[in-house]
Amino acid sequence: MKLLEDRIKKDGQVLPGDVLKVDNFLNHQVDPDLMFAMGEEFARLFQDEKITKVLTVESSGIAPAILTGLQLHVPVVFARKHKSLTLVNDLYTSTVYSYTKKVSNEISISKRFLDADDRVLIIDDFLANGQAVMGLIDICEQAQAKIEGVGIVIEKTFQRGHELIAEHGIRLESLAKIAALEDGKVVFEKQNN
Amino acid sequence: MKLLEDRIKKDGQVLPGDVLKVDNFLNHQVDPDLMFAMGEEFARLFQDEKITKVLTVESSGIAPAILTGLQLHVPVVFARKHKSLTLVNDLYTSTVYSYTKKVSNEISISKRFLDADDRVLIIDDFLANGQAVMGLIDICEQAQAKIEGVGIVIEKTFQRGHELIAEHGIRLESLAKIAALEDGKVVFEKQNN
Repeated sequence: MKLLEDRIKKDGQVLPGDVLKVDNFLNHQVDPDLMFAMGEEFARLFQDEKITKVLTVESSGIAPAILTGLQLHVPVVFARKHKSLTLVNDLYTSTVYSYTKKVSNEISISKRFLDADDRVLIIDDFLANGQAVMGLIDICEQAQAKIEGVGIVIEKTFQRGHELIAEHGIRLESLAKIAALEDGKVVFEKQNN
Repeated sequence: MKLLEDRIKKDGQVLPGDVLKVDNFLNHQVDPDLMFAMGEEFARLFQDEKITKVLTVESSGIAPAILTGLQLHVPVVFARKHKSLTLVNDLYTSTVYSYTKKVSNEISISKRFLDADDRVLIIDDFLANGQAVMGLIDICEQAQAKIEGVGIVIEKTFQRGHELIAEHGIRLESLAKIAALEDGKVVFEKQNN
């Protein structure tokens, strides 16, 4: 998505350790008009999948997920992060390890909001090692919900998230694909078409 | 806002301890079309205030804040919650006590995203004791940003949040005002107009 790539070139900062900082339009300060355009694009990409629910994880997945749900006119459910859970009867939970923060969190979704009739689109802001998305996939499998696809704002294709998703036979669409972060520069993957 | 009150009557659950559970359309599962309508209403209420930035706190403030920012075409900044902060040079921080969870968190906003030229609209999903909003007001004061108003989705008027905001001379607009939660029923405040 050219609009997004241009914005990453203009406002993204490359930090040591393969970190791309985009906190001035995506995950701390948010540009709602850009989010709207991304929601339109995700909805277009998955328009034939009869999506019934958009799933994401708090917090920075919420904005792109809401704007996608707005286009598809379906509910959006955001999984909650917890240190650990005591009361789990009415929740689907999964453990997610963050390579950035080097800590495990449990994520959870109320059983009332996901079931075997759902056709789910998973949306998240970043895909790197894929742990958050795999947690959501795990929760969908527990609920026997059908996963129609995963939509990612920014994918780092040099990390293994996309392999894990492909191993599950799940369609992945990323609006910006980053092949490398070199010498403070963002290198986008060449488009095939 | 009648659309919201009707939804609270239909889907809200009153739990012991003056708790109103609205997690099936507001703060776990989210209805994006309802959020869109609420964003339009906040934008209408504050349309003359030349808002430059919408502020909220993660996580459940993000959806209504983004939809308001979308209408006003201004950036949305969501404050991050932390247990405690070590590196604070580049952040405005404030301590927020949660009466529900009986725990203090620090909230923070990067200094790059708020300054004395900003005219701020604070948006949040709930107003009860007002601690989260007071934390955002504190951060705006540190940044010398002008606070043009506070927009709340659901206000419990029988708790003291609105008094604290009024003491600061700040305009408060709530889309649904709840006067009491009695015997499992939601009692709305009578409208003056």
